[in-house]
Amino acid sequence: MKTPAEPDIAPHRAALARLRVQYHAELYDNVLPFWLKHSPDREFGGFFNCLDEDGSVYDTRKNVWLQGREVWMMAKLHNRHHRPGQDSPYLQMARLGADFLRQHARFGDRCYFSLLRNGQPLFAQRKMFSECFYVMALAEYARASGDATARAEAHYMFGKVQEYARNPALLGRPAYDNGLPATSELAVPMILLNLIEELNGPDENGYAEVSAWCVQQIDKHYRPELKMVLETVGQDGTPLDTIEGRLLNPGHAIECGWFLLNYAIKTGHTELRQKALNMIDWSFDLGWDTKYGGIFYFLDRSGRSPTQLEWNMKLWWPHNEALIAFLMAFRATGEARYLARFQQMHDYAFAKFPDPRHGEWYGYLDRHGEVTHRFKGSPYKGCFHLPRALYLALEEMD
Amino acid sequence: MKTPAEPDIAPHRAALARLRVQYHAELYDNVLPFWLKHSPDREFGGFFNCLDEDGSVYDTRKNVWLQGREVWMMAKLHNRHHRPGQDSPYLQMARLGADFLRQHARFGDRCYFSLLRNGQPLFAQRKMFSECFYVMALAEYARASGDATARAEAHYMFGKVQEYARNPALLGRPAYDNGLPATSELAVPMILLNLIEELNGPDENGYAEVSAWCVQQIDKHYRPELKMVLETVGQDGTPLDTIEGRLLNPGHAIECGWFLLNYAIKTGHTELRQKALNMIDWSFDLGWDTKYGGIFYFLDRSGRSPTQLEWNMKLWWPHNEALIAFLMAFRATGEARYLARFQQMHDYAFAKFPDPRHGEWYGYLDRHGEVTHRFKGSPYKGCFHLPRALYLALEEMD
Repeated sequence: MKTPAEPDIAPHRAALARLRVQYHAELYDNVLPFWLKHSPDREFGGFFNCLDEDGSVYDTRKNVWLQGREVWMMAKLHNRHHRPGQDSPYLQMARLGADFLRQHARFGDRCYFSLLRNGQPLFAQRKMFSECFYVMALAEYARASGDATARAEAHYMFGKVQEYARNPALLGRPAYDNGLPATSELAVPMILLNLIEELNGPDENGYAEVSAWCVQQIDKHYRPELKMVLETVGQDGTPLDTIEGRLLNPGHAIECGWFLLNYAIKTGHTELRQKALNMIDWSFDLGWDTKYGGIFYFLDRSGRSPTQLEWNMKLWWPHNEALIAFLMAFRATGEARYLARFQQMHDYAFAKFPDPRHGEWYGYLDRHGEVTHRFKGSPYKGCFHLPRALYLALEEMD
Repeated sequence: MKTPAEPDIAPHRAALARLRVQYHAELYDNVLPFWLKHSPDREFGGFFNCLDEDGSVYDTRKNVWLQGREVWMMAKLHNRHHRPGQDSPYLQMARLGADFLRQHARFGDRCYFSLLRNGQPLFAQRKMFSECFYVMALAEYARASGDATARAEAHYMFGKVQEYARNPALLGRPAYDNGLPATSELAVPMILLNLIEELNGPDENGYAEVSAWCVQQIDKHYRPELKMVLETVGQDGTPLDTIEGRLLNPGHAIECGWFLLNYAIKTGHTELRQKALNMIDWSFDLGWDTKYGGIFYFLDRSGRSPTQLEWNMKLWWPHNEALIAFLMAFRATGEARYLARFQQMHDYAFAKFPDPRHGEWYGYLDRHGEVTHRFKGSPYKGCFHLPRALYLALEEMD
């Protein structure tokens, strides 16, 4: 395996230094204070995740995805700035959420989707993502707290997640003997690969076999003949001419691109590195709205209308993922075009999403770029994509 | 029970006559030909319901809601223009769908949500609406075909629907012992009341007890202190301060308004008549977008942002429901303001939604009134709201 040439960043050093200052201020002065102040529930534990623009709680439910993701983010920040087990506001936050999750989120080997404020169950999906964010949370929290039991729990639940990935009928979703060929969903191998990265930590290399399976599965969604990354394909990679089979989610594919690029860099796998870069390039080219700017949420690969009503909206998170992806691509290749694309994404995102008055970013814009929803947190938006992007962008810049 | 005074329509007779011509042409020349031509699947039976703007099939799945609704509409048209069992293109269509539904939609006492083209199962929701549209289809089809077995099936399944309405755990959705008070969903009594209307036919009066239960349940959602119709309330009618408890769906409430108005007119219940009119008035006042026109899809009663990403879109069906509601309100009261509101709704809807080139209406506009989705049929849009509205508007005008 050959190591790619170090990029020549000298011509860009001053620009990157300025951006570094801005990202640091955005993360530590605008975004994190919002969550540190408004999200903790000191009475029942866990985090309020339905927060209006000013941080006021508009619903006290607790969504397990977002509880887990905020634990992960806070633990990550602790691990960046403090020693394991050392007292810090980040570790206190992570513990508040981890204790709540461990006490309330699980039923048997599964996790609820949402809980009442006091931790009583509200709803369970027939999907495995609550379990995934439970793993992510406990893996990083174990590192921050030094709690070996949390680490064991994370690995145990990851074992279950692998079972769910291979046999979704275990989630209670009926599997019909309807003659339809089995399909592969991009989200599944993608999140598994990300969880392995989180479970392993920077210097470990476990789960090699599962990682290989993930890479192989993701590869089925990588369609060079179309220059597209498809969300759903047949188990042999065949593109399907159905609503799901034609669906593109450019932000999701860009996120997958940087998961894979990160993996390829670590493993020194140059062919995979190029595939990951292609995923990012193609998805940006298809997803960027040349008329109004920003990345579309959904597209149909044949140019038909996606059935999702929100297809043409501009969501915060695809733009966050693209910031990470282009910086990582620049670091991997040294190609100035990736820095230019990063700058393009940066200009759009920082012009449209931030709320300097109350902190955090708005999450949802219409196609024209107008804010459509005033909340900062919801059942699907929390302390995750934005702080993760700012955090990882700072790491990349360093 | 006193009968309301006959409205004085003399001053409006000419305008209504012109509208009648337009609605007749829209229904019989623009809308029905689209479905008669493009939806039948002569090979496997049933209807294609995923139809692009030109009628081309973009997915061959068959959604049970829409199969049932199209059977109902076609049978209704047959019953309007032909004798029971007499051959007609409408009855042929209704039979194509009814046979398919009866052969493939049921599993035990439940119905699937979606089927493959050949009728094999694709997905089942943990909700009771597929069953409702199955009832609606077979009730009207039985009348059109003279098939007494279909009628018995409709009544049998309606018995099951009542059980599901009172005990949703039967649908496989886990009910948690979480201390949360039980809630009432407007959709449930509303659709039951509509199904009774369909099961009974014009001169029957069965299910009086269930009807009374529906009216009582709907009344809990009618909140004069707020001048609002709430989608979800506590079982005692208490407004809830949660995402669902604050949700308004103005088009849905307007639809409920005309279901109830129709029932009140038939039963001569004057207090209920006024409540139904209030539901329509309040929901229009809240739901109409004074800036860009059209009815918002969702609102939050406290003025927060709904969590639905599509809240500010303008969908075809709320406008269809409002057309029916205002005409019916005009007939019930003779008040010219209802005719003015009908005209306002008519002007917006006919300016924005129709596709004179290929027939049928587009279904989805952004807040500004631009078409966002080019298909005419989808997993949630079919041969139903629009032809029903045109059909009922013609009945009201007559």
